[in-house]
Amino acid sequence: MVNWKFAGLAGLRSVFIGEDNHMNVLVINAGSSSLKYQLLDVDTREVYAKGNCERIGIDGSFIGHSEMGGDKQQLDVALPDHKTAIKHVFEILKNVDKPIDGIGHRVVQGGWYFPESKVVTDETLGWVREVAPLAPLHNYAEADVIEICREMFPEIGNVIVADTSFHYNMPAEAHNYALPKEVVDSLHIRKYGAHGTSHRFIWRSVDEASNHTAHKVVSCHLGSGASLCAIQDGKCMDTTMGLTPLDGLIMGTRCGTVDPATVFYLSREGHYSIDEIDTMMNKQSGLAAISGVSSDCRDIEAGAAEGNERCQMAIDMWSYRVASQFATMVQAMNGVDTMVFTAGVGENSAHMRKEVVNRLAWMGVKIDDDKNAVRSDDPREISTPDSSLHVWVIPTNEELMIALDVKELLGK
Amino acid sequence: MVNWKFAGLAGLRSVFIGEDNHMNVLVINAGSSSLKYQLLDVDTREVYAKGNCERIGIDGSFIGHSEMGGDKQQLDVALPDHKTAIKHVFEILKNVDKPIDGIGHRVVQGGWYFPESKVVTDETLGWVREVAPLAPLHNYAEADVIEICREMFPEIGNVIVADTSFHYNMPAEAHNYALPKEVVDSLHIRKYGAHGTSHRFIWRSVDEASNHTAHKVVSCHLGSGASLCAIQDGKCMDTTMGLTPLDGLIMGTRCGTVDPATVFYLSREGHYSIDEIDTMMNKQSGLAAISGVSSDCRDIEAGAAEGNERCQMAIDMWSYRVASQFATMVQAMNGVDTMVFTAGVGENSAHMRKEVVNRLAWMGVKIDDDKNAVRSDDPREISTPDSSLHVWVIPTNEELMIALDVKELLGK
Repeated sequence: MVNWKFAGLAGLRSVFIGEDNHMNVLVINAGSSSLKYQLLDVDTREVYAKGNCERIGIDGSFIGHSEMGGDKQQLDVALPDHKTAIKHVFEILKNVDKPIDGIGHRVVQGGWYFPESKVVTDETLGWVREVAPLAPLHNYAEADVIEICREMFPEIGNVIVADTSFHYNMPAEAHNYALPKEVVDSLHIRKYGAHGTSHRFIWRSVDEASNHTAHKVVSCHLGSGASLCAIQDGKCMDTTMGLTPLDGLIMGTRCGTVDPATVFYLSREGHYSIDEIDTMMNKQSGLAAISGVSSDCRDIEAGAAEGNERCQMAIDMWSYRVASQFATMVQAMNGVDTMVFTAGVGENSAHMRKEVVNRLAWMGVKIDDDKNAVRSDDPREISTPDSSLHVWVIPTNEELMIALDVKELLGK
Repeated sequence: MVNWKFAGLAGLRSVFIGEDNHMNVLVINAGSSSLKYQLLDVDTREVYAKGNCERIGIDGSFIGHSEMGGDKQQLDVALPDHKTAIKHVFEILKNVDKPIDGIGHRVVQGGWYFPESKVVTDETLGWVREVAPLAPLHNYAEADVIEICREMFPEIGNVIVADTSFHYNMPAEAHNYALPKEVVDSLHIRKYGAHGTSHRFIWRSVDEASNHTAHKVVSCHLGSGASLCAIQDGKCMDTTMGLTPLDGLIMGTRCGTVDPATVFYLSREGHYSIDEIDTMMNKQSGLAAISGVSSDCRDIEAGAAEGNERCQMAIDMWSYRVASQFATMVQAMNGVDTMVFTAGVGENSAHMRKEVVNRLAWMGVKIDDDKNAVRSDDPREISTPDSSLHVWVIPTNEELMIALDVKELLGK
């Protein structure tokens, strides 16, 4: 452990507590061994600074930081825990010289307490820890980060934005698990889903971009983590992740949905422990396992183009699963008029989008290959005029969505 | 253990080894604690005798037996193991006085050795045991039964009909699991499915009944165990059960598909052992757990009619899942022209069929309520002339399908 001392709190306060009419929000997204941050003006959407503390609690930790859209700079610094990391972030942000009017914290698992975002109080912070057994690698660290923000800057309001909130009120038949009632009740087992902040942002974006003509939307968040969400007039009707983010689609290193008895079989016949199976299914499976090459779609596309059969199989299995679960999202809404691709793969891989759309061609889904090939940071429709669905590519922006929640709850 | 001695083998042989032109087949379906049998004439389809040895290895075992469509008679008899049970069956069948020309054995798990049915040899019997770790409660008992049949009647040919065979050649992207390759390869992990004999029978029946106009069929085998199968021109394209019969639909006592991480969570937070979770998910979940009343749809329908909310939730969750996974089967075939209801619930519950069809109404699926209300042992179409799909109810007959395989492989 590094004996790290934070200096200059008093000085920081005068820098960070602003008094003009703009609302600047610091968004913090703490992962199990990382901490991303972004400081932005909610009103102009200008990003003043952003960065990522990586390898927290692991040798070789560092912070990648950039300001005003400039180049990323790497600061090698010992980050033994999340509290240390967030203190470094405030130190760095001192130089940005922008007041912070509120802090938004992305929390992975809101459990049964966060059907919507909430201002941090002793009570709501307690809830983040109470539901932490559902996401132990994330929630405890996130609670620690919230705590230190409150201690350091008691004048700045904090908001909890849970990644599960958007899914909380989906219909019961979609979220209930058919396990014994006493088990389900006592352990709070249900489909919680994830990526809710992204799916919510996508709904708002496509609602606006389509001039309010999109009503039954399948939001396809396809990144190294991936999920689909059926959104009917702004309401989540179903999603592909389950109790945890392991379920659903095939992801970078996650297997997605498999027969739960696979765990029993791996335990009995493979003699793996529960922890080993958890690690296998979450960290050593998915595209990485099928391809044998990489968890990154770009590498897999390149491999397939060179004739690597395992890479081609990874693409086939991945797109088959996306199309299959797309069909379940359509069924959940009794129809569909719009699909949206977003997140790393969804925004950037014309090839993978095409693979998915090809599997849906029998439904009359058609995209314009030229439009599909365009790379852009703007929302864009890529379907042809005679397509049965509107197909969009919309860059997601979870940080902005979180900042907007902060403004709504704490806004001047 | 009862010290049971079988008597009269020599006498039995002269009864059972027939020499006329009819082919009589004894079909044996050994479960984990039961053994069903049926003796029928494959050519006339006449059933001479059938019955079920129940509670094998459990106190209170008995055999329910009937002949020539007559009433069932119960024989209370100690059945310490499957070998004892099958010997009793032959003893009983002596009175039926029909020669046996071949024996068909339903095997739950054929693994990677039975893409089709095979005649029993030392080698094929060895395969049943080799793949038994995939279905240990069933395959070992089934192998024992095959062995004793061969010992008792070496003149009678035996055939293995695996419940997984029909699914073996589904497309790789549908059956591959996205787990590490060395794990998948060494432990033979993939989607095997089940109910293959029933789905194959349904395909043959609907192909005939539709006068060869059915091409993309979703076979809905809905019993206390339940699975869907996408069948395109006789070929399985996908099915809802997975590595084991736990996966897929919500069943009488099985939870079906759930986030595999649910097992990790139940282990860590609920402190259940793997065996306890296995039992919970296979025996204490599903309709029984949701309703709190029964695993039997008839009881649940009655409860819901009386206003029991948990029974109504069981129906809602069950039908939601059927419709959801129906959509994945349609996607697997890039379309559908025919759906078939079969097995206990599918054949007999007009209410549950209607619940499923209501969820598919947005696709243009329509059934005639009068036709749906008919109870019959015959295949019947229940959709309206303007329905987007042909909807059939077809009683399944796995025993006949097995007997037909025996005839094909051993026929005179």
